[in-house]
Amino acid sequence: MTTRDHQILNALPYPLVLLGGDQRIVAMNPPAVERLGAGLIGRSYVSLRQPALLDCIEQVFRTGQAGRTRYPGTGLDRDRTWSVLAAPLPEGILVSFEDVSELEQAGQARRDFVANVSHELKTPLTAMLGFIETLRGAARDDATARERFLGIMQREAERMNRLVNDLLSLSRVESDERMRPTAEIRLGDLVQSVIASLRPVAEPLGVTIDIDCSVDSQTIVRGDADQLTQVFFNLIDNAVKYGRDGKRVQVHMERVSRDSSLRGPAYHVTVQDFGPGFDPIHIPRLTERFYRVDSHRSREMGGTGLGLAIVKHIVNRHRGRFRIESTPGNGACFTVSLPAVA
Amino acid sequence: MTTRDHQILNALPYPLVLLGGDQRIVAMNPPAVERLGAGLIGRSYVSLRQPALLDCIEQVFRTGQAGRTRYPGTGLDRDRTWSVLAAPLPEGILVSFEDVSELEQAGQARRDFVANVSHELKTPLTAMLGFIETLRGAARDDATARERFLGIMQREAERMNRLVNDLLSLSRVESDERMRPTAEIRLGDLVQSVIASLRPVAEPLGVTIDIDCSVDSQTIVRGDADQLTQVFFNLIDNAVKYGRDGKRVQVHMERVSRDSSLRGPAYHVTVQDFGPGFDPIHIPRLTERFYRVDSHRSREMGGTGLGLAIVKHIVNRHRGRFRIESTPGNGACFTVSLPAVA
Ligand SMILES: Nc1ncnc2c1ncn2[C@@H]1O[C@H](COP(=O)(O)OP(=O)(O)O)[C@@H](O)[C@H]1O
Ligand SMILES: Nc1ncnc2c1ncn2[C@@H]1O[C@H](COP(=O)(O)OP(=O)(O)O)[C@@H](O)[C@H]1O
Ligand SMILES: [Mg+2]
Ligand SMILES: [Mg+2]
Repeated sequence: MTTRDHQILNALPYPLVLLGGDQRIVAMNPPAVERLGAGLIGRSYVSLRQPALLDCIEQVFRTGQAGRTRYPGTGLDRDRTWSVLAAPLPEGILVSFEDVSELEQAGQARRDFVANVSHELKTPLTAMLGFIETLRGAARDDATARERFLGIMQREAERMNRLVNDLLSLSRVESDERMRPTAEIRLGDLVQSVIASLRPVAEPLGVTIDIDCSVDSQTIVRGDADQLTQVFFNLIDNAVKYGRDGKRVQVHMERVSRDSSLRGPAYHVTVQDFGPGFDPIHIPRLTERFYRVDSHRSREMGGTGLGLAIVKHIVNRHRGRFRIESTPGNGACFTVSLPAVA
Repeated sequence: MTTRDHQILNALPYPLVLLGGDQRIVAMNPPAVERLGAGLIGRSYVSLRQPALLDCIEQVFRTGQAGRTRYPGTGLDRDRTWSVLAAPLPEGILVSFEDVSELEQAGQARRDFVANVSHELKTPLTAMLGFIETLRGAARDDATARERFLGIMQREAERMNRLVNDLLSLSRVESDERMRPTAEIRLGDLVQSVIASLRPVAEPLGVTIDIDCSVDSQTIVRGDADQLTQVFFNLIDNAVKYGRDGKRVQVHMERVSRDSSLRGPAYHVTVQDFGPGFDPIHIPRLTERFYRVDSHRSREMGGTGLGLAIVKHIVNRHRGRFRIESTPGNGACFTVSLPAVA
């Protein structure tokens, strides 16, 4: 093995293993050591362990023809899928590994997504079909039942409609995520107008929404007005709906001269309610699509399970931070930090 | 440049370009020649043309630090996205290209999918909401209008329900596509029972479904009974719905001792109707999700636009072939070929 081989192998980003004519491991580049472990140089290729990989190498030694294989990783490589090429050299074999995990995961994510969406739609559709049948049959001439059923049907259809809109928003935010928005937004005014639009929902539930704002209402951030409106709408809407027993939602806004995770000046907007909150074990999953602490309650409230997922993606697109806290029995608190225009 | 460098570069599956200390191209492996063109050896790296790539290489020569870039391909590489690493060697640079197109496409495909599904649902949901509102308001006491609206709402809800079921089927078939089904299926009996289940739909439309079968009804193929039922259901259902003016659907089944594309004995099942058919320019796209020749007509018939996409994926999973033909004005003909159990 020459130093030159080393130089070439080390200049490449994917795992590479060079085997000698004596079937021993001659060289591994750093990605290969990271994935397959250290201390293998000089050992037989059998030390690479993966049965599919060993079969493939054995066959290349036997036939002199290049071989390919694909296998799911184990140990350090759980959650990865490797596609491997073992190509014969005049002496020995060069084994190169390609990580195809992301692609596999993309396929799996799509299937999970379809399954979730279908599940979300099936229940209300089945209910609708049942009501329609009853209204055309047994309850044909019952005006009271009709009014009640039509009311439920309307709520269900509105929720499905919200689901479709949320799916579209989410997909749009995801595709824009790499493009940072550039418009100048008056954050204080935007939050105030979201609050104004939610007061008619909060009042009948006996919930007041207060804002205390230590900054000028014309505070400016770079952002997308529609998307930031969605962020605060979703958070305050949740606080009103799930925290209604606390009777009060407190929105707080302040400027921080140096936010350590954003590495610069930032605005923090906090939405706090005084309802039941949730066990903090749920926090890491709350921003997953369709994750809910209490699915029954969410559906009853007309929820789609996508609100916080949308918030997270929009905040990411704005290069901000999103933090969730809760003390069960004592409300929940959601904080959005956005870089301030310096 | 040593022969050894060549050997290593040629043993790797992704494009690689080796540059010398004099900034000239010293070696390219076959994938690099295929992607970047031939005749570049000995020329300056500037001949590689891609501005993003040239900037990156220039910087590595200047700083001696590895550089990365990502750019969409042009010319031969349209539709590809490359992620590039340029790593310094003691003399020169090794440039390696990773094709990240599939991953980008997977993201795009998911977004298109969400947009399509949302679009398919929005129209019927909006209609439903309109009808519900009318039934609770203006048409509150109008029994005739009520019956008519409820009828339309039922059809729309049923179609949305079918859409959800079709989405689930499609997602299940896709995830199974690599696993070939193993059960022994009596193909003749299966097709007969699909026909029996569709006669009650065909008769009121004045359409007869005939089968002519040159093989034993107990003909056996390896397959998944539910999925093969879907295949023939979707095809015969289309023939009845879209070909109803032809008054007759002809199903034909035969054994072929050697099917050239399946390389062995096969069964061919043909579903032929005598309706308007379609212009053959549509054929390549008919098996795409949500592609329809006439969207309005499809929706009127309660179609989801997913039937032929499901057929194609199921036939692929069975290692069969699916062929579409049509003479406009003279009907359409769909042929499924499945490998026969020898
Ligand atoms: N303020 C809150 N108090 C208690 N639970 C909350 C609050 N906000 C969100 N949640 C929980 O987080 C879940 C996800 O929220 P979200 O993504 O907005 O979906 P949705 O509101 O449609 O269910 C909710 O279903 C609820 O269980
Ligand atoms: N037998 C047929 N005759 C004419 N057009 C057809 C026939 N079968 C399919 N098509 C066309 O192909 C399209 C796609 O079919 P399909 O995937 O089953 O979706 P759908 O029936 O739900 O619209 C149909 O919308 C129709 O335009
Ligand atoms: Mg919500
Ligand atoms: Mg169809």
